Amino acid sequence: MSSPPGVPSISIKTRIGWIGTGVMGVSMCGHIMAKGYDASVFNRTKQKAQPLLEKGAAWAKSARGLAENCDVVFTMLGFPQDVREVYFGDDGILQGARRGLIVIDMTTTEPGLAREIYEAAKKHGAFAVDAPVSGGDVGARDATLSIMTGGDREVVDAIKPILEVMGKNIMHQGPAGSGQHTKMCNQIVIAGTMIGVCECLLYGFKAGLDLQTMLDSIKPGAARCWSLDNLAPRILRRDFSPGFLVEHFIKDMAIALKESAQMGISLPGLALVHQLYVAVKAQGQGKSGTQALMIALEQLSHIQVD
Amino acid sequence: MSSPPGVPSISIKTRIGWIGTGVMGVSMCGHIMAKGYDASVFNRTKQKAQPLLEKGAAWAKSARGLAENCDVVFTMLGFPQDVREVYFGDDGILQGARRGLIVIDMTTTEPGLAREIYEAAKKHGAFAVDAPVSGGDVGARDATLSIMTGGDREVVDAIKPILEVMGKNIMHQGPAGSGQHTKMCNQIVIAGTMIGVCECLLYGFKAGLDLQTMLDSIKPGAARCWSLDNLAPRILRRDFSPGFLVEHFIKDMAIALKESAQMGISLPGLALVHQLYVAVKAQGQGKSGTQALMIALEQLSHIQVD
Repeated sequence: MSSPPGVPSISIKTRIGWIGTGVMGVSMCGHIMAKGYDASVFNRTKQKAQPLLEKGAAWAKSARGLAENCDVVFTMLGFPQDVREVYFGDDGILQGARRGLIVIDMTTTEPGLAREIYEAAKKHGAFAVDAPVSGGDVGARDATLSIMTGGDREVVDAIKPILEVMGKNIMHQGPAGSGQHTKMCNQIVIAGTMIGVCECLLYGFKAGLDLQTMLDSIKPGAARCWSLDNLAPRILRRDFSPGFLVEHFIKDMAIALKESAQMGISLPGLALVHQLYVAVKAQGQGKSGTQALMIALEQLSHIQVD
Repeated sequence: MSSPPGVPSISIKTRIGWIGTGVMGVSMCGHIMAKGYDASVFNRTKQKAQPLLEKGAAWAKSARGLAENCDVVFTMLGFPQDVREVYFGDDGILQGARRGLIVIDMTTTEPGLAREIYEAAKKHGAFAVDAPVSGGDVGARDATLSIMTGGDREVVDAIKPILEVMGKNIMHQGPAGSGQHTKMCNQIVIAGTMIGVCECLLYGFKAGLDLQTMLDSIKPGAARCWSLDNLAPRILRRDFSPGFLVEHFIKDMAIALKESAQMGISLPGLALVHQLYVAVKAQGQGKSGTQALMIALEQLSHIQVD
């Protein structure tokens, strides 16, 4: 990938556009505005953008209109089809793209789609970066997200001052799509920790252990993991509120499995966990947090850890 | 379980017996001797007890002989059949058991076997505790093991001064077998983290990522786990030395699966990981460290992460 000419430099006068004002997007765009940048926002449901409009964000009538009037456009959406529509649709970003525009997709989406956007942007003389995050709603609120970038390094370097407003651990991973691939790696590890933690609790419960005392024994050692520290306590309280949505995790795992199949690698652990989460969703828990994996395992063995 | 009468109190004059002088046992018994306790040792291969004999440990001709001449006997062996032989064999511990003897099995073994030993000891007026550990050879060497105990609380309380010489996080988990059950919970979580970490590396490699940079992105977040911190770097160096042996992990998972089936719970994640480790062993890696799971996943997809 050759170094792109004419990457614009960022200043406080840079006009920021933000598309996707869900829980994550509102926090993230809010941090940027708090730094003094002017922002325009667009969202399918205008109502959700209200907190940002009240802080002085301008409302754009379409993704296209927003792109036409901004220098840097961020997107933080739900599913790959949403991303495709917002970029490639009739009133999409690319219809409004011009030389020097920078677009940054922070949605977790398909690496192949990130490459498509990169190539399409290039045709307009625009620059595209994929920059998915980890850290969830809490990381977005506290501006402690990890941000994994893919695309031209010069472009990522240029926008770093803005990314640093939203996150702490910002690492460039390689050409377009590499940010998305890195996020897939993240989700693959989590798939493993989630099944380990839930099966551990099921076993411990059925073995008659006091689960809190068991957790206190195993938490400091080789079983140590974020899911054990943060989600096992929620499961013990039967708190299945999100955190991170089951249906978004299913989407991410499906992307990783599709990519894996295309690359010719077999990931049997991920495939199993994905299927169990499909079961979680089938049981009406698509909007629950990922710790609801417990519910599918309980159904499987016809018991309840309570 | 009623409170047992006549639990002996421990003093520096308590005569310690130690059976099983592998890498773990030599370190653990060494710590006890360093505190000033007199120790007698027995091992199938006398050669391996040499470091302790040189420090002044007495050699016992059999487990039975050792039990007859000690107040507290520890066992740290390999497989459940070794434990059964050492306790129930013709020249075994229980043949030498008497009123007030305390036996402590620190091997990771079957919860049902722990209960058998407990009941058999009781018939002699002796006391049995199951006390498996986590923390591996490093934890044994540095006396930082986690110790999970099962049995009568009064007995565990009595021997706590000795356990504290070997470990830091000593927690009583319930009646006989509960220490073993807790260790199974520990291993179930690790089975999940191991497959997550290895599949992540396989995916990242095939996606063309720089694996170290990818790890630096995901390590601080929700993917955080001991295996990612400690074993992923070894895999990147193609260092499959143990740590914790594949064949011991297979044993532990087989125990957990057998117990699960008996309790009527289905653990599909654990079952899959167990089978993959059986493949690792089939590929001649039984004496490698658990990070050799990578090798089975590589074989499966006919690639090598290198």
